[in-house]
Amino acid sequence: MSVAKEFEAANEKYAASFTKGDLVLPPQRNVAVVACMDARLDTARALGLEEGDAHVIRNAGGRVTDALRSIVISQQLLGTREIVIVHHTDCGMLTFTDDVIRSKIKAELNQNADHIAFLPFPDLRQSVLDDIKLLKDSPLVLDVPITGYIYEVETGKIVKIE
Amino acid sequence: MSVAKEFEAANEKYAASFTKGDLVLPPQRNVAVVACMDARLDTARALGLEEGDAHVIRNAGGRVTDALRSIVISQQLLGTREIVIVHHTDCGMLTFTDDVIRSKIKAELNQNADHIAFLPFPDLRQSVLDDIKLLKDSPLVLDVPITGYIYEVETGKIVKIE
Repeated sequence: MSVAKEFEAANEKYAASFTKGDLVLPPQRNVAVVACMDARLDTARALGLEEGDAHVIRNAGGRVTDALRSIVISQQLLGTREIVIVHHTDCGMLTFTDDVIRSKIKAELNQNADHIAFLPFPDLRQSVLDDIKLLKDSPLVLDVPITGYIYEVETGKIVKIE
Repeated sequence: MSVAKEFEAANEKYAASFTKGDLVLPPQRNVAVVACMDARLDTARALGLEEGDAHVIRNAGGRVTDALRSIVISQQLLGTREIVIVHHTDCGMLTFTDDVIRSKIKAELNQNADHIAFLPFPDLRQSVLDDIKLLKDSPLVLDVPITGYIYEVETGKIVKIE
């Protein structure tokens, strides 16, 4: 069975007891979360989010470069006024470089991916600081509180970096 | 109190009963989910995801253009072999155009955002079909099962589009 079919079965249960059909479009807690796509991180459970609370933007590494379009929409059209960044221990982005993945794509798919910045990082803590700075320096991002954390996949804890 | 502080308090509770510290990096259900950042969609609850199950990539609209870097990393380095796309009813992306948001940014931030494609869409169903086609046509994406849904924020249900 495809995972999609399993999602449909799980969703039937979710929808059967669904009581949140009257939530409005703008996030009620006025915050946008930028987090890694990592499977071990459940942003809602780990941060105490209920449906309707927050924009959740996720990508490989939780990099803000990839999230900029979404953050601008979140702030300009839907009124969020705080940003929380969550990277995590044992992140896949610590394990490779642009050269490594580009070579793999060349070898296995016979494609050139030199135009893609895959945004890996060698230092986890620095990756959080870099992403906070990138947002603070962007003229397209409002001057709002930005907090960066490392989520520990080993303990379930978030550790504040800045 | 900032929302970040509230997240820290909620996370203390989460971590106190955390039992999943031995999960491995690759997603155990070998799937990558691409979904909208919308606050009303809790991808884990709505699809029955547990920690460790799936990559979750989220951005404004759940657009795959913005998710391509993450999908390539997910497939090439972490072995996922299925993609599920989730857009949703009452999406903010149905409410504006590139011209609208660029004008707003010009007026309020005095910045030029002409270089950013904000990827709004006028037709929800078509946006799912377009994103499936974009992935199927990309030489950087493996030939894997791709299923697209519309999540109904009014009912909690996912409706399969293709």
